[in-house]
Amino acid sequence: MANLYKVCIVGSGNWGSAIARIVGSTVTKFDKFDNSVNMYVYEEMVDGRKLSEIINTEHENVKYLPGRKLPENIVAVPDIKEAVRNSNLLIFVVPHQFVDGICNQIKGSLRSDACGISLIKGFDCRGRGIELISSAISRLLNIEMSVLMGANIAMEVADESFCEATIGCKDRKIGTVWKELFTASYFRTSIVLDPQTVELCGALKNIIAVASGFVMGLCHSDNTRAAMIRLGLIEMIRFITEFYGEARLETYFESCGIADLITTCSMGRNQRVAEAFVSSGKTLAELEKEMLKGQYLQGPLTAMEANKFLQEKNLEKDFPIFTAVYEICYHNRPVKTIIDAMREASTHAKL
Amino acid sequence: MANLYKVCIVGSGNWGSAIARIVGSTVTKFDKFDNSVNMYVYEEMVDGRKLSEIINTEHENVKYLPGRKLPENIVAVPDIKEAVRNSNLLIFVVPHQFVDGICNQIKGSLRSDACGISLIKGFDCRGRGIELISSAISRLLNIEMSVLMGANIAMEVADESFCEATIGCKDRKIGTVWKELFTASYFRTSIVLDPQTVELCGALKNIIAVASGFVMGLCHSDNTRAAMIRLGLIEMIRFITEFYGEARLETYFESCGIADLITTCSMGRNQRVAEAFVSSGKTLAELEKEMLKGQYLQGPLTAMEANKFLQEKNLEKDFPIFTAVYEICYHNRPVKTIIDAMREASTHAKL
Repeated sequence: MANLYKVCIVGSGNWGSAIARIVGSTVTKFDKFDNSVNMYVYEEMVDGRKLSEIINTEHENVKYLPGRKLPENIVAVPDIKEAVRNSNLLIFVVPHQFVDGICNQIKGSLRSDACGISLIKGFDCRGRGIELISSAISRLLNIEMSVLMGANIAMEVADESFCEATIGCKDRKIGTVWKELFTASYFRTSIVLDPQTVELCGALKNIIAVASGFVMGLCHSDNTRAAMIRLGLIEMIRFITEFYGEARLETYFESCGIADLITTCSMGRNQRVAEAFVSSGKTLAELEKEMLKGQYLQGPLTAMEANKFLQEKNLEKDFPIFTAVYEICYHNRPVKTIIDAMREASTHAKL
Repeated sequence: MANLYKVCIVGSGNWGSAIARIVGSTVTKFDKFDNSVNMYVYEEMVDGRKLSEIINTEHENVKYLPGRKLPENIVAVPDIKEAVRNSNLLIFVVPHQFVDGICNQIKGSLRSDACGISLIKGFDCRGRGIELISSAISRLLNIEMSVLMGANIAMEVADESFCEATIGCKDRKIGTVWKELFTASYFRTSIVLDPQTVELCGALKNIIAVASGFVMGLCHSDNTRAAMIRLGLIEMIRFITEFYGEARLETYFESCGIADLITTCSMGRNQRVAEAFVSSGKTLAELEKEMLKGQYLQGPLTAMEANKFLQEKNLEKDFPIFTAVYEICYHNRPVKTIIDAMREASTHAKL
């Protein structure tokens, strides 16, 4: 049975655990998958017990997804090398600051036929300019990478509310395997052969979520928020076209495009913190600490990295929303100027 | 000065009054417009005084837009023929059941160079299948019609929250005049030379708002609502392509497309009533009476008319969301099957 696909979920936060509920179930339904799924768990103590032991005996990630059972074929493995050793389908779903460290640990321990998929949203912004997370993993491990992005609030997925996601991959053959793996009656995926655009949407949307939070903090107008989502999407598309080459417009109609943007601008953390920024008078750093319990805010960082691209090409004025978010977050530009930026964006919002 | 454009606003509800605030201001800024704007007011008594007199003395539509002043150059005229007689730019903004009656009254009283723009969302569904409102006006009056649609909640526009709208017209020359007229620092428009698609978006979105209301009534999941907006938009696009011919995908990125859909699915009346339908156990007719104070629900009617098109071509199964909304509203299909419809839609949501 050496030709079975063996899955390892690299990560066990709330999104990783929600995904484990889907993947643990699908592997038992198709002959091509090994029935047991490894899940790499960063070991920590919970009420005096090891988290990995709790997961393996009680089938629940009591720390990151309490109250929802995991399938019994999900095996928590606290040693990352051991977790990935026999696997050839690697699902990366760790906070992105841990990507480098994990890849460096498992380099050389992988099966020769291993490939991966990244569920991690955001850029890797440290040092080498904007690098897509999937590109960083691919570079570090020398494996083919796909991505899965979409309008997926982890808790809602864990509650089995219907939602969709987009699989971005380079060829349809591996895409079809991932699609089989990530399917449930409440979770539907589509395949797009343009992984770069799929992943860029997942990162850039956080800039627009910050902008949308500013807008709602300023005026609580649904009209204005809808205009921001529209103008923001157009700026995302123009940014991707400018720096990564033209993508098919159809891609933006996938879950990774408009759907994820709508969800993120309705209730994601970037939106919430930015809204509080307007009303509280506190700094973003203070709010991050107060509101996010150790998670951090991707939108401002992404805006800063995008701004480096724009500065280099002297294009800041052509991307008024991206530029305003960056300057409000890092240069004390008054938050109310986000509305001027929308007005500006509206005058040349052509695709 | 015979070559000045003279504006008449046909209608004085809350949207007509909000628009009067913009138009009354712009006509004074451009030499090409007559400085005085007529507004047709259906006469009614308010606290013992004629509404038209109140508007002309207090410059406030105390009945439909209380608390917001109208510019003093807005002249309320209770006689529809007199209101339009010297005007050549007619802005139609009445509830759509009054369109026929008004057009029949003014037929023959118009300037030979008159043209119009419709701000009325919805279809004219009585008798002759789906007819666009602008087409009905054009047919009855033999004038060229444009449309203005977008994410525009009237009260928010009256409060001068920033928003956008889309002008759909057949040629750019008249579009440019309308664009000048409908511009304020807080109100931005773009011109699209595909008025049919612009207007169809404004009507079909109400079907999706009903579907979105059902979803929120069932599960209150932002993921699921975002999926519904995405899948609904794709069904709208496929419907327009099937029955009206292919439109440029770019049009759907305008305010009339995604932005209006997002706003309508967030807080429009179709969404609110449909959500209450799930939780209250009351009929839509009962809720319409209780919640809408004389306004009526466009989504179910539009779904019924769209369904006639689909039935004729035996395409109901290819439009699972449109079909589910129709059957839930009119044939007691269980509301929870809207989720099945999404699952179905998700499997062939290709543009």
